[in-house]
Amino acid sequence: MTYCLGIITSSGLVIAADSRTNAGVDYVSTYQKLFDFTWVNERVLILCTSGNLSITQGVLNLLNKDLRTQAESNLHTLPTMYEIAQYVGSKVRSMQEQNRPWLQKDGIDAQCNLLLGGQIQGEEPELYMVYSQGNFIQATKETPFLQIGETKYGKPILDRTLTFETSIEAAAKCALLSIDSTMKSNISVGPPINLIAYDRDSFETKRRLTLRLGDPYLVKIRKQWEVSLRQAFERMPDVDWQHNPHSKVDIAYTDSLD
Amino acid sequence: MTYCLGIITSSGLVIAADSRTNAGVDYVSTYQKLFDFTWVNERVLILCTSGNLSITQGVLNLLNKDLRTQAESNLHTLPTMYEIAQYVGSKVRSMQEQNRPWLQKDGIDAQCNLLLGGQIQGEEPELYMVYSQGNFIQATKETPFLQIGETKYGKPILDRTLTFETSIEAAAKCALLSIDSTMKSNISVGPPINLIAYDRDSFETKRRLTLRLGDPYLVKIRKQWEVSLRQAFERMPDVDWQHNPHSKVDIAYTDSLD
Repeated sequence: MTYCLGIITSSGLVIAADSRTNAGVDYVSTYQKLFDFTWVNERVLILCTSGNLSITQGVLNLLNKDLRTQAESNLHTLPTMYEIAQYVGSKVRSMQEQNRPWLQKDGIDAQCNLLLGGQIQGEEPELYMVYSQGNFIQATKETPFLQIGETKYGKPILDRTLTFETSIEAAAKCALLSIDSTMKSNISVGPPINLIAYDRDSFETKRRLTLRLGDPYLVKIRKQWEVSLRQAFERMPDVDWQHNPHSKVDIAYTDSLD
Repeated sequence: MTYCLGIITSSGLVIAADSRTNAGVDYVSTYQKLFDFTWVNERVLILCTSGNLSITQGVLNLLNKDLRTQAESNLHTLPTMYEIAQYVGSKVRSMQEQNRPWLQKDGIDAQCNLLLGGQIQGEEPELYMVYSQGNFIQATKETPFLQIGETKYGKPILDRTLTFETSIEAAAKCALLSIDSTMKSNISVGPPINLIAYDRDSFETKRRLTLRLGDPYLVKIRKQWEVSLRQAFERMPDVDWQHNPHSKVDIAYTDSLD
């Protein structure tokens, strides 16, 4: 499994990913899933991948090949983030076309999803999710985050702390806690965690981090978050069993037998 | 969707369930999913259901019919919780056998899962999950909770606050927060919430509650939990971007192009 998330706020972007891949519980390994295609001072471009590893590595290879051969359309020539999302989608479609019929013969899942975040000179920062089918959606102010992979365990913290006005520092913290919650509940998501925080209009990714297994900062925030959660939990008022006596009858199936 | 959970601790049981059912987003309705089959002073028996509603209602109907007709084997005659789990599993198998071939013709999911918690005089409290296939597992001290339905959003709070030694009051609070987290992140889980807390060896379910939409206690704990979470979040140390400068190279795909 995989968990990657992108956050877009009024002051920039945060992109984070775990690095665990598994094909069954007996084949767990580590693969990088966050890739920085930034061209400093010109454009910031970050990609995260989830799903079938052979498909996503193929997509990255195609993107990279176009850069190296200076193909007319590549990550560094296309003029807008929208067109880059379309272009990444076309690479996904090409990999799917090539491999899917073969994978399907053996019932292997060919699905993949990608996150694409960045900013091009003269444009706003933007964040996209590209689907297996090559189509894509863009994050908006109303829901300023997108997730791929094992998304559910880490969503409550995002739902409760993130808005479009959240600072980049707070969004980065939130991303780490979201990944940590996921790692705690699903062993198929694991370190190293890659994290990038991008300040809008800076056109470089200065703040980036790889947190490995047992990294002291990772250990510290997990411990502190657990203590804080437990304290918050203990401060919650006990259930008021008396406040609605009429509810007692609602769930009895066998009153007549009592 | 549905979310139900059962918690077993050294001092008793907590069982909770939402009440939302949906067949597509355009057919959302309210159905009770927690049922109390307790026979006061003799045995406490609580069932929760998730999955295909026609199947689970059918199972409940079969269980109830055996009670009303005083069949030899019924929820009030079987001597152990294990045998009751087996018996509930046999009703699941009977409903599956009867309906699954018809549902499968139209690609309709016939899956269902049930939680069964309770205590019989002379026995310990026990908690089971009965699968669609009629087989079942029992909760143990190591992992003192079982969930059915939309389980992921509400799991982090359980993973971080529950142990077998948690008090029943705390476990009940935790169950409500787990359901509230799920409701916040998935609109197909919703109130009324039914909640039962059972003190071991009491052989009655005195503490039970139905929390309806907008219930003041539900509003209060959601608000207070959000405030507490946000405060805990704000107290977390900011990301230390400098602590591992070597990590910078790891995720760059295009250093040569910088």
